[in-house]
Amino acid sequence: VRRLCYTRRVHFGSDNHTGASERVLNALATANSGHTHGYGDDDWTRRATAAITEVFEREVDVLYVATGTASNTLALACLVQPWESILCHSQAHILLDESTAPEHQTGGARPTGISGRDGKLTPAHLSAYFASTGADYPHNPRPGALSLAQSSELGLVYSPEELGALSELARSRGLAIHMDGARFANAVAASGRSPADLTWRAGVDVLSLGGTKNGCLAAEAIVCFRSGLAEQLGFRRKRAGHLLSKGRLFGAQFVGWLAEGHWLTLAAHANAQAARLAATLTARPDVRLAWPVQANELFAVLPSSLVASLRAAGAEFYDWYKDSLPSGLALGEGECFIRLVTSFATDDRDLEAFAAALGLAAPAALS
Amino acid sequence: VRRLCYTRRVHFGSDNHTGASERVLNALATANSGHTHGYGDDDWTRRATAAITEVFEREVDVLYVATGTASNTLALACLVQPWESILCHSQAHILLDESTAPEHQTGGARPTGISGRDGKLTPAHLSAYFASTGADYPHNPRPGALSLAQSSELGLVYSPEELGALSELARSRGLAIHMDGARFANAVAASGRSPADLTWRAGVDVLSLGGTKNGCLAAEAIVCFRSGLAEQLGFRRKRAGHLLSKGRLFGAQFVGWLAEGHWLTLAAHANAQAARLAATLTARPDVRLAWPVQANELFAVLPSSLVASLRAAGAEFYDWYKDSLPSGLALGEGECFIRLVTSFATDDRDLEAFAAALGLAAPAALS
Amino acid sequence: VRRLCYTRRVHFGSDNHTGASERVLNALATANSGHTHGYGDDDWTRRATAAITEVFEREVDVLYVATGTASNTLALACLVQPWESILCHSQAHILLDESTAPEHQTGGARPTGISGRDGKLTPAHLSAYFASTGADYPHNPRPGALSLAQSSELGLVYSPEELGALSELARSRGLAIHMDGARFANAVAASGRSPADLTWRAGVDVLSLGGTKNGCLAAEAIVCFRSGLAEQLGFRRKRAGHLLSKGRLFGAQFVGWLAEGHWLTLAAHANAQAARLAATLTARPDVRLAWPVQANELFAVLPSSLVASLRAAGAEFYDWYKDSLPSGLALGEGECFIRLVTSFATDDRDLEAFAAALGLAAPAALS
Amino acid sequence: VRRLCYTRRVHFGSDNHTGASERVLNALATANSGHTHGYGDDDWTRRATAAITEVFEREVDVLYVATGTASNTLALACLVQPWESILCHSQAHILLDESTAPEHQTGGARPTGISGRDGKLTPAHLSAYFASTGADYPHNPRPGALSLAQSSELGLVYSPEELGALSELARSRGLAIHMDGARFANAVAASGRSPADLTWRAGVDVLSLGGTKNGCLAAEAIVCFRSGLAEQLGFRRKRAGHLLSKGRLFGAQFVGWLAEGHWLTLAAHANAQAARLAATLTARPDVRLAWPVQANELFAVLPSSLVASLRAAGAEFYDWYKDSLPSGLALGEGECFIRLVTSFATDDRDLEAFAAALGLAAPAALS
Repeated sequence: VRRLCYTRRVHFGSDNHTGASERVLNALATANSGHTHGYGDDDWTRRATAAITEVFEREVDVLYVATGTASNTLALACLVQPWESILCHSQAHILLDESTAPEHQTGGARPTGISGRDGKLTPAHLSAYFASTGADYPHNPRPGALSLAQSSELGLVYSPEELGALSELARSRGLAIHMDGARFANAVAASGRSPADLTWRAGVDVLSLGGTKNGCLAAEAIVCFRSGLAEQLGFRRKRAGHLLSKGRLFGAQFVGWLAEGHWLTLAAHANAQAARLAATLTARPDVRLAWPVQANELFAVLPSSLVASLRAAGAEFYDWYKDSLPSGLALGEGECFIRLVTSFATDDRDLEAFAAALGLAAPAALS
Repeated sequence: VRRLCYTRRVHFGSDNHTGASERVLNALATANSGHTHGYGDDDWTRRATAAITEVFEREVDVLYVATGTASNTLALACLVQPWESILCHSQAHILLDESTAPEHQTGGARPTGISGRDGKLTPAHLSAYFASTGADYPHNPRPGALSLAQSSELGLVYSPEELGALSELARSRGLAIHMDGARFANAVAASGRSPADLTWRAGVDVLSLGGTKNGCLAAEAIVCFRSGLAEQLGFRRKRAGHLLSKGRLFGAQFVGWLAEGHWLTLAAHANAQAARLAATLTARPDVRLAWPVQANELFAVLPSSLVASLRAAGAEFYDWYKDSLPSGLALGEGECFIRLVTSFATDDRDLEAFAAALGLAAPAALS
Repeated sequence: VRRLCYTRRVHFGSDNHTGASERVLNALATANSGHTHGYGDDDWTRRATAAITEVFEREVDVLYVATGTASNTLALACLVQPWESILCHSQAHILLDESTAPEHQTGGARPTGISGRDGKLTPAHLSAYFASTGADYPHNPRPGALSLAQSSELGLVYSPEELGALSELARSRGLAIHMDGARFANAVAASGRSPADLTWRAGVDVLSLGGTKNGCLAAEAIVCFRSGLAEQLGFRRKRAGHLLSKGRLFGAQFVGWLAEGHWLTLAAHANAQAARLAATLTARPDVRLAWPVQANELFAVLPSSLVASLRAAGAEFYDWYKDSLPSGLALGEGECFIRLVTSFATDDRDLEAFAAALGLAAPAALS
Repeated sequence: VRRLCYTRRVHFGSDNHTGASERVLNALATANSGHTHGYGDDDWTRRATAAITEVFEREVDVLYVATGTASNTLALACLVQPWESILCHSQAHILLDESTAPEHQTGGARPTGISGRDGKLTPAHLSAYFASTGADYPHNPRPGALSLAQSSELGLVYSPEELGALSELARSRGLAIHMDGARFANAVAASGRSPADLTWRAGVDVLSLGGTKNGCLAAEAIVCFRSGLAEQLGFRRKRAGHLLSKGRLFGAQFVGWLAEGHWLTLAAHANAQAARLAATLTARPDVRLAWPVQANELFAVLPSSLVASLRAAGAEFYDWYKDSLPSGLALGEGECFIRLVTSFATDDRDLEAFAAALGLAAPAALS
């Protein structure tokens, strides 16, 4: 389904096609010297956790891992039993793009998409699911957690109010709340709301906070707002092979990433470039956006010929899952559905080259 | 979602509410005396396997277990890898009614419903799924097996031709074929086709052949038509705790059940009683069958007041999952959706009492 | 390592080579008629649980399964985390004879033998293990449970005082206590102590109470003395495929087995026949018992030629694991190590034929 | 059991207390710029694999992960079935120091220590294990793989001849051969034998090649010499959350580490410093080495008072597992058993300060 035609010129394939930001790399180089204890018992790790504590305005338990899949699935393993289901968006990364990692780490719990083709999860999806699904236990899988992506699978941003309504309903049914924050920085930058408002104040139990897609090389933090999870999480991380001996690798990246709001600067840049890209695209009458562009991802329907021209001109991006199209939007004959992603490293030349390939003027510069 | 109001009078709750047939019980009593080796190394087990071999007209590997869930999930564990998905009907027992047993036994493979609200799985469901779903491995779960229920989740029977078309398409994509035969006897009796035509000649790799719902107490056979599965199945059964020490328990039941076509006699009776029950029900203008009655299960929409009267009159049956209603059939205000199941033990008094509660004459006797 | 030469004459292979006792079979036949609810929601199951409650003189939660392996491993799954170890005798059934079922059901906890070649586990084994083993968590597996077999792997019986000392030490280190009671009836009959004294009064959290080896066909009860385990156990049993639909199968067997002390009558017979067999064997100067005979198992070292004669005369028994020999007892050149097991069905002809094959007079009759 | 008194002065705690070597860090910085594809589809990863291919003088399949535990356990998961055991040294890292990660990744296979207190595994250990252990399948766990550490758990180095004898015997029983190469570089440097001689030419199927302890930050390569494992390994890595999106992190480290024999230069330095440290220690009559020092680890018995002085003087090292002492060496009253580890970063000041704390002259400089 996906097809990638990589070139060196116009990079909208993924926000994981970049390296680390300069600041993050410098922090890593600085942290490299000297002896420290292993396994996270070092000053860089402690400094990173202090920075995360400050960002979220409260005590938290934090464990670091190298991948978003590890972060999501280890977090979920602490929240659900193996005979429970994990309700999520029908396009959730944990459902579609992480193999059967949720099953692996949770001991066999079941991710279950419940949104259909709507853009974001809503309390109505939860209510409909609860109403139509069997609750004859132990026969039916029992819902154990709600997992939300922020920003969402389709590049949308949940408001604290939306999150609160979802988590309140879910919690009333006994579900725990997990947030896949692979692009949490983009959501914070886009919404202007505080990290606290977007997580624990809105009922989130555990956040998988991603640094990798937004300026780190490999740095993901499992941030626990509910106490009592850290011990089992430590055991789970170890037995999953995700406890790095040289913990400074994560500590240093997070220290560099969070210092002086660097993470939000990076995310705001990516978001702004996405907005400019959207403006460019929609200047053409034959291009339709599937969803409003709120963070750093664009989903668009284009004529196949145009897609071919863009790729011929060196643009890199993915064809996207057709079943993620909104219900109202049918793919016409001779049309393609694609995803474009911007990042902290998306520069004006990317935008200009892309616009040129579309036969359009370069987009206005960022103010 | 389900509600059961058990009484002693009119039994349509489930075909597992009965004991064993007299013949099966007698075989068990006969087999009880004397010493034999444990773990299936005994003559009763060997006789059972010989009988199954004869029924299916070819060499097979057979392992016995006590439950349908064990049979289904151990079979599937031999057919898929933990990173694969198991495509099935959206109302499949393995998807909805076996907790997360498929995940447990397979090491984390994912059952995935693909039929929507159609009555049976068709090649079109498979094609649509393959067309719209990501095949970017190892990121996306990879389809590894197709699991079909015969008779189906909604009481329908697949013809050998339908099975062949499904298995051919599935196999062309590398999938193995599993059949959940909890009510396989009912399908054989209903279709008049041979067990061989309904399984391996139509491409089935492994059949979970159920005796429990149709005259046994606890007897399920995993029948492998593909060679090379028996060894790992033996290991899997043992480590799942499903290798009984006194194997004669299974051997004797299957010997009694299969001898002289007893299993088909029992199933034909259950099917016939279901047909009579359907005729009775549909004599009322305010009752709609959700699906044709082809085996021993009926799914019907009735006025809630009628359902209440039936239960008051001592009828036992389950409310059923609303999301299993066919797309064209909406549940009206004041209506209920129920399932009725007949069995080898459904006698005329059940039918008569039910008809009386409906204000109808007793159904015609079985010819 | 094991070798079995089955004949029809002299049966000391295993206590699972028999069928059910007459009383148990009758209970099963009686329970067979009529309709009941499935999945243990029936009167036979309720009567069985009431009988077990009475036997143990307190409220208990009970779940039924078909095999000892299911019983042991599902019980353990409720007591340990996947990153913990299960300390047990070096010859424990859960360690040697249940494949990797403990790992399967617990999600990967580790059974660990700590007794060396001693006959029973003692507090000294626990202390030595704790003293020499790493406790640097999460790196080292953390001991989570102690599993004891009663009667033991080598046919010995723990006194309540021995059990209390073991469980007290284990509990002081945070371990839960499981008892593998595949031959619990034999231990009760042999010790003359109450089931309560031998379990919860001595600190046992969960007992796997076995009926199969002592007069049932397939009936094992997981008896929880610690509250709060029943719910997860119910989910675990279901997803492991061990929840039988026709629960009366278990209920009836246990009702018949426990009524009027039948279970202890059966076990006392088996024990007495073992004692007579031991007396017979040790009448020969060239036979050594590896351990005192306290229940219904004998472990003996014999000249190989004698073993051959016995088998030629139709005696059935297993060669046994050489590493279960006590430290002081070396297997000489030309010697074999065997296990003999008696059962409720061991009759005098077995003993007489065995004695005759040894060139000895028949043993004295049971008083 | 372990105790660590960290200071900034004398570093013998572990070879994972360092950062990356300068060359490795530089490679990482160089690789950071520019866009590449994710998930290992990049030039740095390809260059790393080419370098490994050259080192091993043959085609290999290589997958990269961040930790030794991931590397060991994912490799083992490809070599054994869940009902099999993994034979290893009684002090193996996979047995004692990786929690129950082997169980987690293999789906429940069982690591089993078979060496007792000998220093290295030998064919005699394998033969004794096979002779005394049950092979009554599926009841007993079936040996599926042999896992060897090179250099070993006790700092010893297997010769190609020793490896060949072990693997030949193991393979004759159907076992696959895995090598835990967390300190493989040290073994190559110490033995002067080629990487090929120490692996595939000696029968090894998969090597877990560690960079982290010897100059990388987090870089481990699973090197498959047996073909046909790469596909499943790719799926396993993904679903375990070990597929990094920014694959250049691993690629760059390995490129820098392997270029111009840098990895062996680093290892040779660590080994040489260990030899000097051993010479220093054994200059005291009250110190005994438990094992010859062949690579970069020392295991020594010292008076407790001396250990206290060393720690007071700022030396960092671990108390070690008492059950890893060789059978002939008893720990006396007032003695401690410790482990000292040197690394690429162990400099002369470490050695000098340590010698001074022992009241000895500084060791001779490296020639």
